[in-house]
Amino acid sequence: MTSLKKVNIGICGLGTVGGGTFNVLTRNAELINSRSGSDIRIVQVGSRRTNPACDLSGVGVTDDIFEVAANPDVDVVVELVGGTSIAFELVLAAIENGKHVVTANKALIAQHGNEIFEAAHKKSVMVAFEAAVAGGIPIIKTLREGLGANRIEWLAGIINGTGNYILTAMEEQGRKFEDALEEAKALGYAEADPTFDVEGIDAAHKLVILASLAFGIPLQFDKVFTEGIGKLDLQDVAYARELGFRIKHLGIARQVGKGVEVRVHPTLIPANSLVAEVDGVMNAIMVKGDAVGPTMFYGAGAGDEPTASAVVADIIDVARALNCAPEARVPYLAFNTAEFSDTPVLPIEDVETAYYLRMRALDRPGVLTQVASIMSDRGISIEAIIQKRPQSGQDHVPLIMLTNKAREGELMAAARDVEKLDAIDGDVIHLRVEYLDR
Amino acid sequence: MTSLKKVNIGICGLGTVGGGTFNVLTRNAELINSRSGSDIRIVQVGSRRTNPACDLSGVGVTDDIFEVAANPDVDVVVELVGGTSIAFELVLAAIENGKHVVTANKALIAQHGNEIFEAAHKKSVMVAFEAAVAGGIPIIKTLREGLGANRIEWLAGIINGTGNYILTAMEEQGRKFEDALEEAKALGYAEADPTFDVEGIDAAHKLVILASLAFGIPLQFDKVFTEGIGKLDLQDVAYARELGFRIKHLGIARQVGKGVEVRVHPTLIPANSLVAEVDGVMNAIMVKGDAVGPTMFYGAGAGDEPTASAVVADIIDVARALNCAPEARVPYLAFNTAEFSDTPVLPIEDVETAYYLRMRALDRPGVLTQVASIMSDRGISIEAIIQKRPQSGQDHVPLIMLTNKAREGELMAAARDVEKLDAIDGDVIHLRVEYLDR
Repeated sequence: MTSLKKVNIGICGLGTVGGGTFNVLTRNAELINSRSGSDIRIVQVGSRRTNPACDLSGVGVTDDIFEVAANPDVDVVVELVGGTSIAFELVLAAIENGKHVVTANKALIAQHGNEIFEAAHKKSVMVAFEAAVAGGIPIIKTLREGLGANRIEWLAGIINGTGNYILTAMEEQGRKFEDALEEAKALGYAEADPTFDVEGIDAAHKLVILASLAFGIPLQFDKVFTEGIGKLDLQDVAYARELGFRIKHLGIARQVGKGVEVRVHPTLIPANSLVAEVDGVMNAIMVKGDAVGPTMFYGAGAGDEPTASAVVADIIDVARALNCAPEARVPYLAFNTAEFSDTPVLPIEDVETAYYLRMRALDRPGVLTQVASIMSDRGISIEAIIQKRPQSGQDHVPLIMLTNKAREGELMAAARDVEKLDAIDGDVIHLRVEYLDR
Repeated sequence: MTSLKKVNIGICGLGTVGGGTFNVLTRNAELINSRSGSDIRIVQVGSRRTNPACDLSGVGVTDDIFEVAANPDVDVVVELVGGTSIAFELVLAAIENGKHVVTANKALIAQHGNEIFEAAHKKSVMVAFEAAVAGGIPIIKTLREGLGANRIEWLAGIINGTGNYILTAMEEQGRKFEDALEEAKALGYAEADPTFDVEGIDAAHKLVILASLAFGIPLQFDKVFTEGIGKLDLQDVAYARELGFRIKHLGIARQVGKGVEVRVHPTLIPANSLVAEVDGVMNAIMVKGDAVGPTMFYGAGAGDEPTASAVVADIIDVARALNCAPEARVPYLAFNTAEFSDTPVLPIEDVETAYYLRMRALDRPGVLTQVASIMSDRGISIEAIIQKRPQSGQDHVPLIMLTNKAREGELMAAARDVEKLDAIDGDVIHLRVEYLDR
């Protein structure tokens, strides 16, 4: 081992992922060095607190993470602090000091990535972020390298384990959203404030990164359409199943003629599609390339060591690339930034997909014809219908429809018109449907 | 684009994969160059026949593939000739001439990889072979890089699409092996001589490569245990389903205390496991790492452009690494060859797994006790039993059992003893069971 080039790591943050990274690097040191051809060692840890899972003896510990970013012995700063304020400062300081950076911080990359990569490019340092999306699944490497021959047509993923855990509980145990959320909190899968997970913000952070890598567009977090699972009704879960679908909270990015769709929302997908079988806290991303066809990548999307697996893979990549000319490095966002595409991210009104609609209709002849006629006037056809028998004492019955593919703007306009019908009570509930051809 | 470094490609072989590679490189040239940072161009094609799917105008074509390997303008020789004789000569000639090599040839790597990598190491050239395993799924990159932080515990994959197509037809349509095979031939999924696919030899070629990458052992094709699907009985497919399993032709590699298991055989897996849902000609590989946990990678395992996707990804990697010091390259077999592990590949007798057993037993009291007693004497316990009622006029009934985990040597010895019982008619059929924890 004496001939291996030393690569010195400074870890900032020793929480769940920091602790996992420390332990994986330590436990698998011999194997990692043999694979990487480098002698990768942790020379400093910056953390205000200790982590009982880690044996820090023999490692320099400081409570000032900026000391790590300034340490002349450190080659690679591993940012595992989280958040977008101090972490942003830390990453910029590390870059300014000529350090390479590895981070697991999806919010940071999604919101400040363009600026970070520009700073890194100027200082000719690497910034790696495999762990920012889907934990241990090497989806960043897959999009940047493994599928590099492909024009990516679309990708769709379960990229938030908390949301998928809740949806699985709703589907398989018929539990209400609120109950499933409480359970997820009790098991440590959901934060005390679950907004980021449940409202799809966390998924949107990840999706904006994937979309940029897939389509060569700049990171545009503010353009992502995001709809959470908090308002999802158990009866829609049941009706979807009756129609042969399951509901998953998907992040979807698709290149179409006039732009790119980038959206996170509850989605009906065929029950027999592989991604429909991805349950609990697991993540999976389908990617459709023009050459490779449909692919899927599955694994743990969070957790100490699954995330550490991705962090350490990045460290190995950075260590290896230290022996390369800068032009040999994989571009931060898969394409040369000088060549970003100006393809616009489409507003949700311009998205085209199929829809699931549910409304409460008076149980009398002719209502269905009225609804179908409104849809038809806007070029929307109905592919399947479930009409339930009235329950005793009820005038209205649930009417459920699947439409063909339509522009969301048209669909919403039609829904508003349907709501105006005397025979329709209340709102028309709409959910999007994707067929995800294998 | 004028500033991009030129990388000149010579393609040898213009069949299915050669044609696909030519077309993907041509169609996606702009995108590939933007991702790779190189100007990758095909300067020569070596093929005795033309391919109607390819527009070869403007490309030098020779009918002598060795001319490509000797062409001073060619940087990277892409071997898509197939087979292990001329392809082997071609690859050695290309290496001798200082060319980097990209190949899709699983048989060549499995059988001659050790020699090829040694020759390549001497000449300091790269040999890339992503397309040799599971077509467009970037599983080689995943094992060598994406999961590089992990000690791999096991991997299990559907790595032969033909076999999986036949098994799916047997499972879902209740078709006999022979009928399903004929259909696969008619659809072009099976060769006229299907031996390689059906007997598991093709899967064994791929598995030996995966095992080497996962565990750091040399390629040892002669040590792989291989059992085909040709003798699989429809009644076992049905009983397996009754017990909550599906049967897949899996390649399995597992690190255990005393060695490595490397085996291809029909395998019962839980019907609710994700890999059980992989149907038709698709491939999928599960990999369990100590840090990342269980993962799965799914996609097309064959076909012109899916395979080309992997070939071109390798070309991009090689183009990039031309700007790196040789020590920065990913090692051929994931680990430094100087550090190959001498962990032995275990003979099948030493493999430990659970078993499905089927026998024909006289329908009289006490038989089950006799069988259970023989098993128990060898430390094998029975976890589940199905005993069918006798059909009219039949003395014997099918008796089906699931055992706990046992050494195969013990299991087979017990089966031989059971066969000697008066009450048992004919052989004890055994199939292996894997639980593949998610």
